[in-house]
Amino acid sequence: MGKSTVISMAVVRRLPRYRRYLSELLENGVDRISSKELSERMNLTASQIRQDFNCFGDFGQQGYGYNVKELYNEIARIIGLNKSYNTVVVGAGNIGQAIANYSSFGKLGFNLVAIFDVNPKLIGLKFRDIDIRDVDDLDSYLDENKIDIGIICVPKAQAQRTADIFQDKGIKAIWNFAPIDLKVQEGVVIENVHLSDSLLTLSYRLNEAELFGTEEK
Amino acid sequence: MGKSTVISMAVVRRLPRYRRYLSELLENGVDRISSKELSERMNLTASQIRQDFNCFGDFGQQGYGYNVKELYNEIARIIGLNKSYNTVVVGAGNIGQAIANYSSFGKLGFNLVAIFDVNPKLIGLKFRDIDIRDVDDLDSYLDENKIDIGIICVPKAQAQRTADIFQDKGIKAIWNFAPIDLKVQEGVVIENVHLSDSLLTLSYRLNEAELFGTEEK
Repeated sequence: MGKSTVISMAVVRRLPRYRRYLSELLENGVDRISSKELSERMNLTASQIRQDFNCFGDFGQQGYGYNVKELYNEIARIIGLNKSYNTVVVGAGNIGQAIANYSSFGKLGFNLVAIFDVNPKLIGLKFRDIDIRDVDDLDSYLDENKIDIGIICVPKAQAQRTADIFQDKGIKAIWNFAPIDLKVQEGVVIENVHLSDSLLTLSYRLNEAELFGTEEK
Repeated sequence: MGKSTVISMAVVRRLPRYRRYLSELLENGVDRISSKELSERMNLTASQIRQDFNCFGDFGQQGYGYNVKELYNEIARIIGLNKSYNTVVVGAGNIGQAIANYSSFGKLGFNLVAIFDVNPKLIGLKFRDIDIRDVDDLDSYLDENKIDIGIICVPKAQAQRTADIFQDKGIKAIWNFAPIDLKVQEGVVIENVHLSDSLLTLSYRLNEAELFGTEEK
């Protein structure tokens, strides 16, 4: 107990970034790093970094900095990388195939165990050794297999129905690539990758100076 | 002048969401909507919505609500969708191909005009009518063609070099899919889609209750 469970999403979103930077430091043979050095690399303030880590416990020693390997392991544990996860992708289109192709997710412990699609030409084929199954069999597959994370790569019209099946079958985490904000039950976490929103944010920012009739940012 | 140019990123990131919802309302033949109705659909407060729109000007009338078509057009203009953009993708791997395949980006005015890769087996082929070119020709291509948005889909080791070429050749907007935080010059805007960060955020949130020894959120 003791610690509050409410970690702000801003802090949460920095955790994977910390992991990335620490992983690079490890690859480069760096054993130890100060919050100041880490802050310069990450474009954060040192006090921000110390505050973030303090949400989760006591890391580092005054005047010594952080032991990179220990800190990496601790952050990885906090993120949940000490476990492994079974995942399924629904929708074997562009983005579904791209996700299925990411071997780095497997290395992190996210094991893609099945892909589902509606297209009869794809059903029954394998994609990198993973069966492409009929989406009509998703319910029964989830009855028989323990899946931790459901990945939605279907068009937006089918996305809520897919999310509903996931939730009905006890999946507690949904990674959604459909361009829609899905309704999920209490206790189910959802993370969206809205590609077109991201592109339009870029477009806005490209035009911002012009919009306000000044070059200033 | 008058208006400040500093619109918070939180507001900016909601603009594409507003556009999505308004586009759906238009598709469903809805002519008019109150900030209250819109807020319920979008899971924001009505006052938040009014504040957001006030950053950009006067929309809507007291007691009447918003004219959906007008509001849609205004948001689209603010985002910059009244123009068109030439884009190039560098890196024709999983995600590069997925991005190149998104026909909806073309409909929004983002025209993919070339794809670059290092793989000799791909160079010279076409992908959906778009030439796949040798990445060694990126510099000269950018000298001869006006490109608005550069899309980085290469591995992280090549990402900064690609970003540097884009910037040297005057590209002011970069959409980055490599799992790295790139350095960009003042005046260049960058928008990242870090898929593994997104997946690890989901993983953290799935484990959060357990981490703190309580089910509460």
